[in-house]
Amino acid sequence: MITLYTWATPNGRKASIMLEEIGEPYEVKTVNIAKDEQFDPAFLAMSPNNKIPAIADHDGEEVRTIFETAAILIYLAEKSGQLLPASGVARDSALEWLVWSVAGLGPMLGQWNYFAKRAPEPVPAAIERFTVEAVRLFKVLEGRLDEAGYLAGDYGIADISAFTWTKAVFGPLREMAGERLGATPQIERWLFEIESRPAVRRGMAIPQV
Amino acid sequence: MITLYTWATPNGRKASIMLEEIGEPYEVKTVNIAKDEQFDPAFLAMSPNNKIPAIADHDGEEVRTIFETAAILIYLAEKSGQLLPASGVARDSALEWLVWSVAGLGPMLGQWNYFAKRAPEPVPAAIERFTVEAVRLFKVLEGRLDEAGYLAGDYGIADISAFTWTKAVFGPLREMAGERLGATPQIERWLFEIESRPAVRRGMAIPQV
Repeated sequence: MITLYTWATPNGRKASIMLEEIGEPYEVKTVNIAKDEQFDPAFLAMSPNNKIPAIADHDGEEVRTIFETAAILIYLAEKSGQLLPASGVARDSALEWLVWSVAGLGPMLGQWNYFAKRAPEPVPAAIERFTVEAVRLFKVLEGRLDEAGYLAGDYGIADISAFTWTKAVFGPLREMAGERLGATPQIERWLFEIESRPAVRRGMAIPQV
Repeated sequence: MITLYTWATPNGRKASIMLEEIGEPYEVKTVNIAKDEQFDPAFLAMSPNNKIPAIADHDGEEVRTIFETAAILIYLAEKSGQLLPASGVARDSALEWLVWSVAGLGPMLGQWNYFAKRAPEPVPAAIERFTVEAVRLFKVLEGRLDEAGYLAGDYGIADISAFTWTKAVFGPLREMAGERLGATPQIERWLFEIESRPAVRRGMAIPQV
């Protein structure tokens, strides 16, 4: 049994989608970041960077806790033997694109979302900087999906990780960036295919708040 | 034999430090990002996100190429059996902090560096946002180093990854943020210990440009 500590955000949903995909039994504990619950000492003991999601695995002799979504996805993939090849070039590729999704795509879309949608005052230079970067990243994504179908060939943890932020930001970004983004048939196909997966639909509805 | 495609940046130096630490024979090919060489088609074929570093491993029957620094560090650690525990809680911890360093620390220090040091016009709201985040991240780093000595207990790939950005940004950030940063004896101890390693000194001098 896994305990998932999460909230209704793109990062939180990577973990719930993964748990649904691998069919792992889990319970959900909400960490309401609007109420600063991520700073509770009991949560910080598991997730010292004060971010959701985190998981606790109760299946072994000792409870194992993991924070950082990419580390959680690798852990659950290796625990279940699913959605991450065990070795070779296919595994290299899955890890490359997983890292790309958490080190490039997620942080930069997150900053775009902040400056374009949530900042109390408009900051044109920051909006432009992160629009340029988001457009660049979506062009990289479009090219890769055109070449490989999914990020690492077969659907896997890199897709789950890239999906939730793309789902949250792609529509509003297209509205603002317009023609700078160009045609994106592969991203639209990929979003549709991933959203159609029953496990993804269930995972996207977690937590119910 | 590994070929390292790199430039004199915090991300590039993670790879050269790692190659020096594990004693892997390698040759260096420079990718001059001031001349946009990261957009050369031959480089993009290896590194489709147009970022350095990338590596090519010529030891097997087919050449294996890897991009994204965290994926490179995992690959080289597993190839050499060094600086990343093979299993268990120690490996969980190494991957958690490795991901933290590339998904949190690196991107946010990079944005701080841009807005505080390189932007053509001052953007006070962005400088403040990334100062707050950089201070938060350095407090997380200080706390972890106080608890564990190195990020994952023993010196390893998470430390190499967090070191190069911290080395580049910590001094200038302290100068600007002053007392907001608080006391950081553990970060200073950790920087000193890592900088004192002969392999780190050699890796930081790569590439010679």
